[in-house]
Amino acid sequence: MDFASDNAAGASPLVLEALLAANHGAVPAYGSDPYSTRAKTMLNDVFEREVTAFFVTTGTAANALALGALCPPWGAIFGHHHAHIANDECGAPEMFTAGAKLVGIDGPTAKISPDAFRTTLKDFPVGTVRQVQPGALSLSQATECGTLYACDEIATLSDIAHGAGMPVHMDGARFANALVALGCTPAQMSWKAGVDVLSFGATKNGTFACEAVIFFDSEKAKNFAYQCKRGGHTLSKGRLLGAQMAAYLENDHWLDLARSANAHASDLAAGLKGIPGVRLAWDAPANQIFAILPRAADEALKRAGARYYDWGSRGHATSQALAPDEVFIRLVTSFATEAEAVRLFVSIVREAVA
Amino acid sequence: MDFASDNAAGASPLVLEALLAANHGAVPAYGSDPYSTRAKTMLNDVFEREVTAFFVTTGTAANALALGALCPPWGAIFGHHHAHIANDECGAPEMFTAGAKLVGIDGPTAKISPDAFRTTLKDFPVGTVRQVQPGALSLSQATECGTLYACDEIATLSDIAHGAGMPVHMDGARFANALVALGCTPAQMSWKAGVDVLSFGATKNGTFACEAVIFFDSEKAKNFAYQCKRGGHTLSKGRLLGAQMAAYLENDHWLDLARSANAHASDLAAGLKGIPGVRLAWDAPANQIFAILPRAADEALKRAGARYYDWGSRGHATSQALAPDEVFIRLVTSFATEAEAVRLFVSIVREAVA
Amino acid sequence: MDFASDNAAGASPLVLEALLAANHGAVPAYGSDPYSTRAKTMLNDVFEREVTAFFVTTGTAANALALGALCPPWGAIFGHHHAHIANDECGAPEMFTAGAKLVGIDGPTAKISPDAFRTTLKDFPVGTVRQVQPGALSLSQATECGTLYACDEIATLSDIAHGAGMPVHMDGARFANALVALGCTPAQMSWKAGVDVLSFGATKNGTFACEAVIFFDSEKAKNFAYQCKRGGHTLSKGRLLGAQMAAYLENDHWLDLARSANAHASDLAAGLKGIPGVRLAWDAPANQIFAILPRAADEALKRAGARYYDWGSRGHATSQALAPDEVFIRLVTSFATEAEAVRLFVSIVREAVA
Amino acid sequence: MDFASDNAAGASPLVLEALLAANHGAVPAYGSDPYSTRAKTMLNDVFEREVTAFFVTTGTAANALALGALCPPWGAIFGHHHAHIANDECGAPEMFTAGAKLVGIDGPTAKISPDAFRTTLKDFPVGTVRQVQPGALSLSQATECGTLYACDEIATLSDIAHGAGMPVHMDGARFANALVALGCTPAQMSWKAGVDVLSFGATKNGTFACEAVIFFDSEKAKNFAYQCKRGGHTLSKGRLLGAQMAAYLENDHWLDLARSANAHASDLAAGLKGIPGVRLAWDAPANQIFAILPRAADEALKRAGARYYDWGSRGHATSQALAPDEVFIRLVTSFATEAEAVRLFVSIVREAVA
Repeated sequence: MDFASDNAAGASPLVLEALLAANHGAVPAYGSDPYSTRAKTMLNDVFEREVTAFFVTTGTAANALALGALCPPWGAIFGHHHAHIANDECGAPEMFTAGAKLVGIDGPTAKISPDAFRTTLKDFPVGTVRQVQPGALSLSQATECGTLYACDEIATLSDIAHGAGMPVHMDGARFANALVALGCTPAQMSWKAGVDVLSFGATKNGTFACEAVIFFDSEKAKNFAYQCKRGGHTLSKGRLLGAQMAAYLENDHWLDLARSANAHASDLAAGLKGIPGVRLAWDAPANQIFAILPRAADEALKRAGARYYDWGSRGHATSQALAPDEVFIRLVTSFATEAEAVRLFVSIVREAVA
Repeated sequence: MDFASDNAAGASPLVLEALLAANHGAVPAYGSDPYSTRAKTMLNDVFEREVTAFFVTTGTAANALALGALCPPWGAIFGHHHAHIANDECGAPEMFTAGAKLVGIDGPTAKISPDAFRTTLKDFPVGTVRQVQPGALSLSQATECGTLYACDEIATLSDIAHGAGMPVHMDGARFANALVALGCTPAQMSWKAGVDVLSFGATKNGTFACEAVIFFDSEKAKNFAYQCKRGGHTLSKGRLLGAQMAAYLENDHWLDLARSANAHASDLAAGLKGIPGVRLAWDAPANQIFAILPRAADEALKRAGARYYDWGSRGHATSQALAPDEVFIRLVTSFATEAEAVRLFVSIVREAVA
Repeated sequence: MDFASDNAAGASPLVLEALLAANHGAVPAYGSDPYSTRAKTMLNDVFEREVTAFFVTTGTAANALALGALCPPWGAIFGHHHAHIANDECGAPEMFTAGAKLVGIDGPTAKISPDAFRTTLKDFPVGTVRQVQPGALSLSQATECGTLYACDEIATLSDIAHGAGMPVHMDGARFANALVALGCTPAQMSWKAGVDVLSFGATKNGTFACEAVIFFDSEKAKNFAYQCKRGGHTLSKGRLLGAQMAAYLENDHWLDLARSANAHASDLAAGLKGIPGVRLAWDAPANQIFAILPRAADEALKRAGARYYDWGSRGHATSQALAPDEVFIRLVTSFATEAEAVRLFVSIVREAVA
Repeated sequence: MDFASDNAAGASPLVLEALLAANHGAVPAYGSDPYSTRAKTMLNDVFEREVTAFFVTTGTAANALALGALCPPWGAIFGHHHAHIANDECGAPEMFTAGAKLVGIDGPTAKISPDAFRTTLKDFPVGTVRQVQPGALSLSQATECGTLYACDEIATLSDIAHGAGMPVHMDGARFANALVALGCTPAQMSWKAGVDVLSFGATKNGTFACEAVIFFDSEKAKNFAYQCKRGGHTLSKGRLLGAQMAAYLENDHWLDLARSANAHASDLAAGLKGIPGVRLAWDAPANQIFAILPRAADEALKRAGARYYDWGSRGHATSQALAPDEVFIRLVTSFATEAEAVRLFVSIVREAVA
């Protein structure tokens, strides 16, 4: 019953098999191997256009490198107060931009409100030398609260950003989970909605350590190879990344994995919703569930060895009034979640509450 | 016949097996997994003392992060003119130190000469505000020219550095190859000779992507976890690194791999040395061979599909007088080199020359 | 009638005279001149203890360099949302810290609330690798809203910061104005209240371009000379700074200048307060006045050539309900303000309202 | 007898007078004052074209900011091994470029040799990801050895740089001294010879603290105001800089000052050349003289209180064979040098040698 993180599992068996298969023989180093080349071609197909893609091992690297390619040191990166880039990357975006400023924007359940974005932008007039300048917008899809932007919501925010002269970055650590929940195409959820650079996450959804930074505007990628190398993010045995990504994409494996994770989350939500005294904090249609439980249920779960985060302590839950005997938790499912774990979890809560 | 780089192979089969075995079940993320813990304990044994170790995916990351932990932005990092940190990392040390200055020192075959080091140090007087201050010494073992520092040579350079108030970093991308060539212990070649922080390479010698940054002074490591995270170098599925390193160290697998690579290099050298018109540029006892061949041999090798670097073009060979019809090449062997490739290579040269 | 900024005037005549007097003859460069030495000795007297002082030309440099000496790249600098370091220095603190993160804290009229500080600190647990670590607290005295921290309020915030392992910086761009308003000693308002490093402003209060960075803990200053030089902030003809600062401090000239500026502000406030339809937004006891005027008065003032900032547009006034025909303005006085300008300003408002 | 540095004097009386005159009344802050505007217009005249100019207080700031505008973090800045940017700015160029690499080029008497430049460039192939990329060329005019590039020599180096896709920076800390020695126009010695950005020094030649960064390509200056502000280099009372620069340029005052400094140097050289046992190290036609004296003369000078640098210790004199009883010194004259000091210096040497 590990619902703490979609990083707790290893790699999907198909990805691992591909790694095994890719291990034989000598191939060119530093990303010029046939596995990486093939994975890049597959991404063109996935996004229905030519893209410029780079593979790195962590989501923090993908985000920070992408922002470093978009935003100058004297720029402001606009993102939600709760965004991963703001709170969970120990200043990596600041490092890779050589000191840009992250500006937090409000909005319910970790979604940037267009009005709040417009209002915040007024504090950063173009040409006012004493202030950092509009640098980039960064959206998380899915968000830290497991919520999703509809494609037209992405387009609205992108339009505001572009209107202010800024490119748009999407932190897609859970891109696949969002995609299958929305039922749209990768193109619709990214470049067709105005996204310029995408951190295309794969690690949480089945690879061992592989993310793609995908540029829809190749001009913005022109120095990216240097930025990666300089950041220590150019693997010598690049096939490690290329083979993972190719296997991840092959035969829509990535979508199958995400559907499985989402289905488990949906089952969890459905199971919990029906229990008296248990509430879901908000609608979260991908692979994260935010629930408010009686403390007795929390204690029973922990006795049974269940793992998950107490979300209240992260300050994300301020809009939720908790009774003194309630706890606010986050549950994350992944491709590796087992149906039995979901059933067990729900039944423990039900019994504890009864 | 791939002698271009020890990055051209994949992982050793034992390392890959370990990855497979480590893939099952949920374990804590971000390096708190049992595989990483075990690998760290094994490193204590290897170095005959408690060490503080961190695992990253690339040698550039290991070096740049290590130097970032040792040298302030206003510091000078002393290293050989030909060092990897100076020429092959696209400024990563500058990035991770927030702008330190790399100062090149002379010495034959990429080994820092103690006299040249002492002379250079005079140009960086402590307390002279207009100049960057002594920050760190970085040694490569083995060097870019495949040569080795004897343990007492390391100690001599470390003493000079420590006397100037500087810590000592060792770039051990080929630590294992150097170690088995010298026949000393890991402790003797590192902390007992004054090394404070070691980039302990494993990727070139059998892992897929895993290097350890090893601190012999834990005080210098106190902020290293933040520096790694901030650099995007903290893998969420940390077992990928821990499992590789544990398998690499287990039952002295790493030493076996290095001995195999070195033996192939030694066979290559022996084979070439006996051919008229072929010279070895200098004695290189680990897994890199530097040879001067008649152009006819070079052409025959290339026709046969052999891969290796033309070393003359890298400016490392200025002390070698080449005849117009000679080429200066580097040959690198690895754990994956096959004896047949060595034999074939030598025979092609012999025939071309004959 | 220039109330736009205390940067609009030149230097006080005594400061200028001192510059003239200091111009003759050859003296050592780079701050080793007798003028700088004398000014540093005078600062020891002013602060009733030995201090380590450096002179720079701008407040932004003083703040950014000071923070760069206190906070590592992976650190958080806590300050009020409205602080100058956060909004008016184009990312200088981020640059000089190599990428630290500025974290905004709430509190009325630009004063940090101790409770809000304590609450915010909970989001930055020591040792949590994914987050930047407590780095420094920065207080502005006087604040951006012209308000003041009492000495015991400074001590309370310093205690919280020190308890979290952080040093305390004070942005004293208007240190003198705050000091004479509070009627305490420089020591009481700084190190006796827990301040570790002070940006001791002088430019707004009578020098041409001179600020001191004053360390009360000389250990924290040990690399500061390098940090200044590296930032381009070490003047070759250092007497330019030393002579200004010595003249500024001599015979309490600086206190006289600040008393004059504050008295003009007080007269302005008193004059405006008595006019029907005019409100002062809050009590501001130093040299900045925040007033809400009928638009007619604003228009009459502008016709008469008066200069001042529309403060509403800076987002600092959100707690103030403005009627549609009201404007929210900031008025700043300086040592160079003339009593006649104050009288004229008040009379124009009075007439416009009548 | 102060020949240690052209930073030992204060400001020229005309510059100081202008400061006095500029002190009255309120003017806009942050460089929008009429003095700065006028000085910029005068620079257009000086350079016979429209230029984009910014004023800062130090040469280090001018150089580092200029290079920060030209060279990306993954770039190489090519300059002579002895250049001020490489040895005397404590890593400021590295800081303002966020970590670019300074690459030293050889050439006699601190002048870059075109052949050495071409050869060095071969080590930095465009597109080779493991290496920093050609970023900028920086020339010093006059050089650290007091030598000068003829205009066509500048053009030759600029052509090589431009051919490699790099802009050209000139460190003109002693631009005026070089200009009057060559007898050419400012335009000929800068943009007509291919210089893209010029650090136009004035501090060593008569201002108190004022340098201009002059862009001949305004596109490269588009973010420079942010870069200055962020570096703490935007003076609030900008008239301090504008007034100095305007006075410096007015009626060719700057050329008069430089002619005076150069004439003193020429007198020194002529006086010393005639003394048996005294040698000039090389021809240095501006305001720095490099001489080799018998130790007895050195001792007599020091007893008489003369100040100058022992140049041998800076490693610039390696090509000069010194006898054991000889010393290698640098003598710098300035606008403030007195003819009597020159005469006295020469006579002391003559007597000591006799």
